[in-house]
Amino acid sequence: MLMSVPPTNPSATESDPETLGWMRGFPPSADRLITFQDGSFRNFPELRWAWSNIRQLVPTVNVWRGQGPASPLPRAEQDIGAVASTTMDGRPMTFAKMLEETYTDGIAVLHRGRLIYERYFGALKSHKPHIGMSVTKSFTGVLAGLLVSEGKIDPQAPVTDYVPELKASAFGDARVHEVMDMTTGLAYTEVYTDKNSDVWGLRRANGMAPIPPDYDGPTNIFDFLIAQQKQGEHGQVFAYKTVNTDVLAWICRRVSGLTLAELLSERIWQPMGAEEDAHYHVDRIGTESGGGGLSTTLRDLARFGETMRNHGRFNGRQIVPSQVVEDIARGGDPEKFKPAGYPTLPGASYRNQWWVTHNAHGTYMARGVYGQGIYVDPKAEMVIARYASHPVAGNAANDPVTLPAYMALAKTLMAGG
Amino acid sequence: MLMSVPPTNPSATESDPETLGWMRGFPPSADRLITFQDGSFRNFPELRWAWSNIRQLVPTVNVWRGQGPASPLPRAEQDIGAVASTTMDGRPMTFAKMLEETYTDGIAVLHRGRLIYERYFGALKSHKPHIGMSVTKSFTGVLAGLLVSEGKIDPQAPVTDYVPELKASAFGDARVHEVMDMTTGLAYTEVYTDKNSDVWGLRRANGMAPIPPDYDGPTNIFDFLIAQQKQGEHGQVFAYKTVNTDVLAWICRRVSGLTLAELLSERIWQPMGAEEDAHYHVDRIGTESGGGGLSTTLRDLARFGETMRNHGRFNGRQIVPSQVVEDIARGGDPEKFKPAGYPTLPGASYRNQWWVTHNAHGTYMARGVYGQGIYVDPKAEMVIARYASHPVAGNAANDPVTLPAYMALAKTLMAGG
Repeated sequence: MLMSVPPTNPSATESDPETLGWMRGFPPSADRLITFQDGSFRNFPELRWAWSNIRQLVPTVNVWRGQGPASPLPRAEQDIGAVASTTMDGRPMTFAKMLEETYTDGIAVLHRGRLIYERYFGALKSHKPHIGMSVTKSFTGVLAGLLVSEGKIDPQAPVTDYVPELKASAFGDARVHEVMDMTTGLAYTEVYTDKNSDVWGLRRANGMAPIPPDYDGPTNIFDFLIAQQKQGEHGQVFAYKTVNTDVLAWICRRVSGLTLAELLSERIWQPMGAEEDAHYHVDRIGTESGGGGLSTTLRDLARFGETMRNHGRFNGRQIVPSQVVEDIARGGDPEKFKPAGYPTLPGASYRNQWWVTHNAHGTYMARGVYGQGIYVDPKAEMVIARYASHPVAGNAANDPVTLPAYMALAKTLMAGG
Repeated sequence: MLMSVPPTNPSATESDPETLGWMRGFPPSADRLITFQDGSFRNFPELRWAWSNIRQLVPTVNVWRGQGPASPLPRAEQDIGAVASTTMDGRPMTFAKMLEETYTDGIAVLHRGRLIYERYFGALKSHKPHIGMSVTKSFTGVLAGLLVSEGKIDPQAPVTDYVPELKASAFGDARVHEVMDMTTGLAYTEVYTDKNSDVWGLRRANGMAPIPPDYDGPTNIFDFLIAQQKQGEHGQVFAYKTVNTDVLAWICRRVSGLTLAELLSERIWQPMGAEEDAHYHVDRIGTESGGGGLSTTLRDLARFGETMRNHGRFNGRQIVPSQVVEDIARGGDPEKFKPAGYPTLPGASYRNQWWVTHNAHGTYMARGVYGQGIYVDPKAEMVIARYASHPVAGNAANDPVTLPAYMALAKTLMAGG
């Protein structure tokens, strides 16, 4: 049995940031203040405000949408709120109740390219960017894939061919494809509930955690990556570690000569006809967090999902080469994924920064902590974009409720319901 | 004789941030790094990069432009680069040379509503916001004027009618119009070249200067304002002190129930058909710096100037009531302005956060340190929007070159040349 929501947390309605009045008033009252410096933005329920307002807490760099109109996102409203499913722990569920139970801030469902359902909750609005957390990685993967398809990155090459600075680090004998698929052997640990986990060092380096006055660790992403130590062998098993993506982002910058923000703007945001600018949070020296720092509007996240579903074609253009998308959709090696132990994702694999289910619908996903995600179901011709602010970071907390609801919706849509 | 450029500084060409490679590379080399934490972003020539990239250094809040197309800005190119003038210190000058000599990052000239000249230099691009410094104040003034025209603010009322928190401060016995016109009597000093000036306390409070570890002063704008002490009498003379504008912004928030970013978006940015979102930098609790924190694109700055020239009408709408603009254009009391001693602005006055020349053309201006400005010449039907990164903060350093060049251009345009 997989439990979904710890019963001790207030519900989505009880923790609604607008109702609670977080950061309202001039000034907000002391018990409604959220700051970066005191770390309160990471607490629940404060994070329900923070994930929709991250640029008010940390420096960011713009991802320009370009000039001209946004690409059309035709509407064909369907009330899918009553679509029924059963959670992994056996409880009856509806699509609407799933949204509430998993602290959804916004959800957009596309079926055959039409926006059939779009809802906002909490502090999110249609024109406001919400942080994607590790959904960011899937953008980095696609950008890397683009550069691979152009011959600018060789997946079989050593990482140090592009970033010699990593010679003495754990990545000194790693190949690019091992970084893309996160099969490197690293001492680095990423346990969100452990204050001693290395992920906190990464957050201090990438600007998403305050740096204590006496801190002598790395204060930018590059220095943090260079300091990573090897543990185990590369290429053997999948292990989810954000530093891989930050290395991949470094490679992308090196071969393109562009910042990640420029690369995303030129290659995806502008051709896709994004509706709003996006942004990355940056470290102290202006480096984007390629592993977790992208904020976008929900609709633009949906546009990107639809671009993937259409084999890279959207807005009348081939934005991403089809082979880049198909390589992702085909997935990686489930045998390398299995030892990582994701009970909610049996039989899955990880390929170029995407989670591939290998289910009967060929579903693949971009996933970020606290419930962020893009869910592409090619067979049902369905894309779900979702932003959330779940009290628990790990997606094992919402998968038991969300994944069955998504599959039930897919089947309903396939049945023409 | 008024000297314009200290001869010790490198020229605009020599200090070009793109040529010098500031913040280029992954990572940038140590001698090309600019950070907020070490204060280097305020040094020259680093500030030539920083004023076009402020959101990469500090947290910001978005000013949404709304949906739909940007308002048209019809073009009628004229090569005005050769227009001749004489600087206040008697040197022959051309419009193009003026731009170089005063470290212009971008200039847009509108004549009769048409964009006749638009140039970018340094780190600025047409779609990138540049910090307006105290040009921000003129936006706050117009927003306050709007709320006055709707009866929501009474200029004759005590400040404490709206913000009782200021009771024990210097503003405890001040009236709103004294804050609007900066005729309050305050102990606060604003001397940019003096590291002991109170303006540094304001910068620490508003997030534009790092806070030392042992600092026990105010760490947000509201606390800083509450701590201000009175010196002299209110209503007697003009004294340029940014805290007045931050008080005015506080009043605007209180009576509207909106943040300054929301207010600017709803009242000006959306109806004006701005081309890009703008942003304010914010303090540690999310408060916009109403006295200096707004960044906009150059074209949107020009649109706002044109809105003013057209008595508040632009994009087919009456955005600002005409009486609000006319009240500003009419100016304040030059006798109250005179003691402040601005040698480059003889006979001028300050009215509701704008600088009014009382010259034969009825020119009025928004002005910000390092050369930011909007120059509205009603008689010549000319608006100039300008962003810059001059090595010297005070505009006395560029006025002797820029103001005669603007007047010469106005006369040329009036003559049909």
